[in-house]
Amino acid sequence: MALDYRFTPAFENPTGSAIRELFKYLSLPGMISFAGGYPASTFFDQSGLRDAAEQAMRETPLDCLQYAATEGLPALLEQLAELMQRRGAAVKTEDMVVTTGSQQGFDLLLKVLLVPGATVLVECPTYPAALQALRLAGAQVLSAATDADGLDTDALAQQLAQRTPGDVAMLYCVPTFANPTGACLPLARRLALLKLAVAHDFLLVEDDPYGALRFAGEDVPSLLALSRQVEGAEGRVIHLSSLSKVLAPGLRVGWMVAPAAIRQRCLVAKQTVDLCTSPWAQRIAANYLAAGALERALPGLAEGYRKKCERMLAGLQPMAEYLEVSPPAGGMFVWGRCRHGLDAKALLPRAIEQKVLFVPGSAFYAHDPDPSSIRLSFAAPGLADIDEGLERLRRAFL
Amino acid sequence: MALDYRFTPAFENPTGSAIRELFKYLSLPGMISFAGGYPASTFFDQSGLRDAAEQAMRETPLDCLQYAATEGLPALLEQLAELMQRRGAAVKTEDMVVTTGSQQGFDLLLKVLLVPGATVLVECPTYPAALQALRLAGAQVLSAATDADGLDTDALAQQLAQRTPGDVAMLYCVPTFANPTGACLPLARRLALLKLAVAHDFLLVEDDPYGALRFAGEDVPSLLALSRQVEGAEGRVIHLSSLSKVLAPGLRVGWMVAPAAIRQRCLVAKQTVDLCTSPWAQRIAANYLAAGALERALPGLAEGYRKKCERMLAGLQPMAEYLEVSPPAGGMFVWGRCRHGLDAKALLPRAIEQKVLFVPGSAFYAHDPDPSSIRLSFAAPGLADIDEGLERLRRAFL
Repeated sequence: MALDYRFTPAFENPTGSAIRELFKYLSLPGMISFAGGYPASTFFDQSGLRDAAEQAMRETPLDCLQYAATEGLPALLEQLAELMQRRGAAVKTEDMVVTTGSQQGFDLLLKVLLVPGATVLVECPTYPAALQALRLAGAQVLSAATDADGLDTDALAQQLAQRTPGDVAMLYCVPTFANPTGACLPLARRLALLKLAVAHDFLLVEDDPYGALRFAGEDVPSLLALSRQVEGAEGRVIHLSSLSKVLAPGLRVGWMVAPAAIRQRCLVAKQTVDLCTSPWAQRIAANYLAAGALERALPGLAEGYRKKCERMLAGLQPMAEYLEVSPPAGGMFVWGRCRHGLDAKALLPRAIEQKVLFVPGSAFYAHDPDPSSIRLSFAAPGLADIDEGLERLRRAFL
Repeated sequence: MALDYRFTPAFENPTGSAIRELFKYLSLPGMISFAGGYPASTFFDQSGLRDAAEQAMRETPLDCLQYAATEGLPALLEQLAELMQRRGAAVKTEDMVVTTGSQQGFDLLLKVLLVPGATVLVECPTYPAALQALRLAGAQVLSAATDADGLDTDALAQQLAQRTPGDVAMLYCVPTFANPTGACLPLARRLALLKLAVAHDFLLVEDDPYGALRFAGEDVPSLLALSRQVEGAEGRVIHLSSLSKVLAPGLRVGWMVAPAAIRQRCLVAKQTVDLCTSPWAQRIAANYLAAGALERALPGLAEGYRKKCERMLAGLQPMAEYLEVSPPAGGMFVWGRCRHGLDAKALLPRAIEQKVLFVPGSAFYAHDPDPSSIRLSFAAPGLADIDEGLERLRRAFL
């Protein structure tokens, strides 16, 4: 029987994730997928995680099984603070909240900070689940231009100059190996972005799930680390990160670093959202980190993704007349544009017929999607599947 | 440096949980606590859970480590549907969502269904984290009277008769072994409540974390199970439950049963909230349930809580002149009222001085708190601590 339910305006006719819509094709026999943002299952450190899990239930069963404090297990908070310090940011445990994936960190922030109708800037293109969260929360989303180096801070300065200072509430970005473009924002632009946040009085939400997956070039400090160097910028950066891409998404363990007034309110919000992130998963993560296993695994992981990325770039060479791509220095994605005015959405059914999947780039735009754009992830498939999948993609272009 | 952040109105000056405020006293040496709603750590089936966890990483490591579908792991959904069927509700896997505790189920519902300013009825008294979630979501909360049997449906009928049909969006309740009162709503009242929901066109949110912890009397069907028997009531009940009280809170595994239109929107919301509940925890729970371990453990668990409850009721006898209590037939709580106009908030510091904790009942009221009320949980402390804690409470009354 169909009742006439009354939904909130945002949920009257919500559209689900365009990427998840592609999932139904994944189960077709023989399909090769460059579509998802899943890490490579073959790279999971199964034995390290099994050891950490066995230790958790052997040594600290009640940490695993009972409720934990909303901010997280102290043992994990300590490990995550050390990890942030190794990444160049002076973070203390009391600056952090363990979240159920970095996705939850953004949801908590929007609950606490986003007045419906407030203006939020995002990179153009940007991460679709952040865009969806912003739309459902009633944000006025504005796109900020990017190029191969990420946010174009000169263009942003011009865009902001045309607005009243203070009317942008926040800017959400993935400055290091962005999803979908793979771009890494250079140091000078990071500093410029922080100065713009000060001058125009907005907050910066720095989402950093991929930063540790660098396989070329030099590390660039996070916006959080740099915020101490720019006058007035301290307290303007909220940093979100996650173990999903570097360890295992199945833990659903992420974290937030936020100024005290914001963090304290996020904790109040989290009490009503899930009380605490799975303490069992937290305890496993804490043991894994305390054993030094992540630091030992990261170089191999980055090297594994470097090989996959290189293989993909090599396999794309024969398609250069159809597809222009930007080589990334880390992360999981290659971003490209079809030449000759080809629409990626028109290419997709031909690709599916050839049994290869990608994501048409329009899913990543808040406004005015570039219909020629496509995202290819090299993370999940093996090297042979990358070769074969790209040969199929080449045939789809013909 | 203190920046002047702009928060959403609900988060300008949020108050955290009154119960969590008591946590600081828990660490005082020798403190005995009847305050929390934590299950007994000594009742956790550590070996059963260890077996389920080892099986998970041995047989299905990628289920544990990779992302799962937003609705939950199929293996867990099947087990939970069977569990619901054993509890008398004809539930299929496609009616359910695995949630990060039942707390998340309520958060998702509020995102999807609660138009700010909409009217929501709650039991008086009610579960504080639900009350907090409603307030932060901008609900107009109305209290519905209860007695020793839970919601007073006659009084509710009168209350609703004075309102325009359709102006109450939903009623949130814990009909079986309520938090804080321990009351179990009798069958006739459940049917009356369902009829009221039909007549006045509102939804019923049935939160059922304690229902399997019955230690006296006969099972009463859930509102969900009964909704098929009342004309027009089908599709009006959203059922939330959890493994936290019967297995382990550390899993953070709960579930929602909801009509298709609501469930589908909750899935869209969950994509932006945490993508999926920890697949590792889900896989452990699925293995535990598939082994029949929960069904084997439940009778002993209920018997364990029965003994603790009996011990608490016996220990409260010598205080009968100070404190009037209602014996529950299940769950974790004894609800009482101080006699002679004593304010429980004035009793609390005297109790803390005696090294015993309880929760003053005012935390559980949306309006007009009964200052004499107190909640005592018998779940966590051992039998000897129950004896000793109540002797201390008796001294606090003197």
